[in-house]
Amino acid sequence: MSESAQRRLDSQIAFLNEADKLKNTLRATELCDNSRYENSAEHSWHLTLYAMVLSDQAGPGVDIAHVIKMLILHDLVEIDAGDNPIFGDLDHAAIAVQEQAAADRIFGLLPDDLRDRFRAIWEEFEAAETPSAQFAKSLDRFQPPMQNLQAGGGSWTDFNVTEEQIATRVGAKIAIGAPTLWEYARHKISHFFAAKAGS
Amino acid sequence: MSESAQRRLDSQIAFLNEADKLKNTLRATELCDNSRYENSAEHSWHLTLYAMVLSDQAGPGVDIAHVIKMLILHDLVEIDAGDNPIFGDLDHAAIAVQEQAAADRIFGLLPDDLRDRFRAIWEEFEAAETPSAQFAKSLDRFQPPMQNLQAGGGSWTDFNVTEEQIATRVGAKIAIGAPTLWEYARHKISHFFAAKAGS
Repeated sequence: MSESAQRRLDSQIAFLNEADKLKNTLRATELCDNSRYENSAEHSWHLTLYAMVLSDQAGPGVDIAHVIKMLILHDLVEIDAGDNPIFGDLDHAAIAVQEQAAADRIFGLLPDDLRDRFRAIWEEFEAAETPSAQFAKSLDRFQPPMQNLQAGGGSWTDFNVTEEQIATRVGAKIAIGAPTLWEYARHKISHFFAAKAGS
Repeated sequence: MSESAQRRLDSQIAFLNEADKLKNTLRATELCDNSRYENSAEHSWHLTLYAMVLSDQAGPGVDIAHVIKMLILHDLVEIDAGDNPIFGDLDHAAIAVQEQAAADRIFGLLPDDLRDRFRAIWEEFEAAETPSAQFAKSLDRFQPPMQNLQAGGGSWTDFNVTEEQIATRVGAKIAIGAPTLWEYARHKISHFFAAKAGS
């Protein structure tokens, strides 16, 4: 193997080893069985499966293979910046600064061509302007309610969230890229809160 | 939403909820920081990232988007069948029977069209005959040594494995779909065992 091929592989593996840390980044969402908090690596895998299973919910112009790549990369910046629960008190400007610095460092471990390619995919996801990014974002918002419904409340209970807050903070975002999924979730969520109120 | 659309979504979500259990399936491999065993969901995510990062190692006829889909699905059968460590004492025929039954049950939760599509992708991976499946299999074998090198031995220590056993049981399989990755790993592994012998 040439010295440059060796150096390239060293950079690729250094990035993959660094990415391993995402398995230790905890989210506010619990597993369906309520046994523990979900980490961002397994969450990212679950989302790629959501994309495969729910591809029939994608609107015109959505490229599912590209959506999957976005979802694989979308949370890597959390290795440095941590997860920011959607129902927490968020300083969006400060988070954006932290995540940009994280992207510089983490994607910067890669050879230049891959660094630029991956950074562009992540920036596309963050900007949420293309159909593929909007669908990816909608899946990222749709999965936690599905987990919470299974877990008997999950992060809704932890953050003392109302049905209305879910509609405003989560539902509106799901509806942008996957309106039918929000319609589906809304009914389930209404049912869940009605049952809770009646119990 | 029509009743049939509702029923289809119910099946899709039932499958995605069931898939959540893969986050509780433990592997023999430890995280790079040696803090705990890896689960099969986060392992699957890590492999999809390996495919993106190491796509330049793929031979002719490999479709990376398809490889990624295989890697997303490849371990789902472990929800029922569990993980089978490569250095353990394996009854391959019994495992194959268990995994086929798991595939029947788990993919069977999906609507028929998705069940058939996903099952075909998983069977292609298992058969390891197409270039894409061979590359996917090679990545699945290449990641654990990379983790073990970081973790100071990991599953090699647990199973008291020799350098020769790694070459036979793991290396030969990596070399089928990604010969340069095995060449790369072989040097690192030799160096690791030499350092261990000298310490």
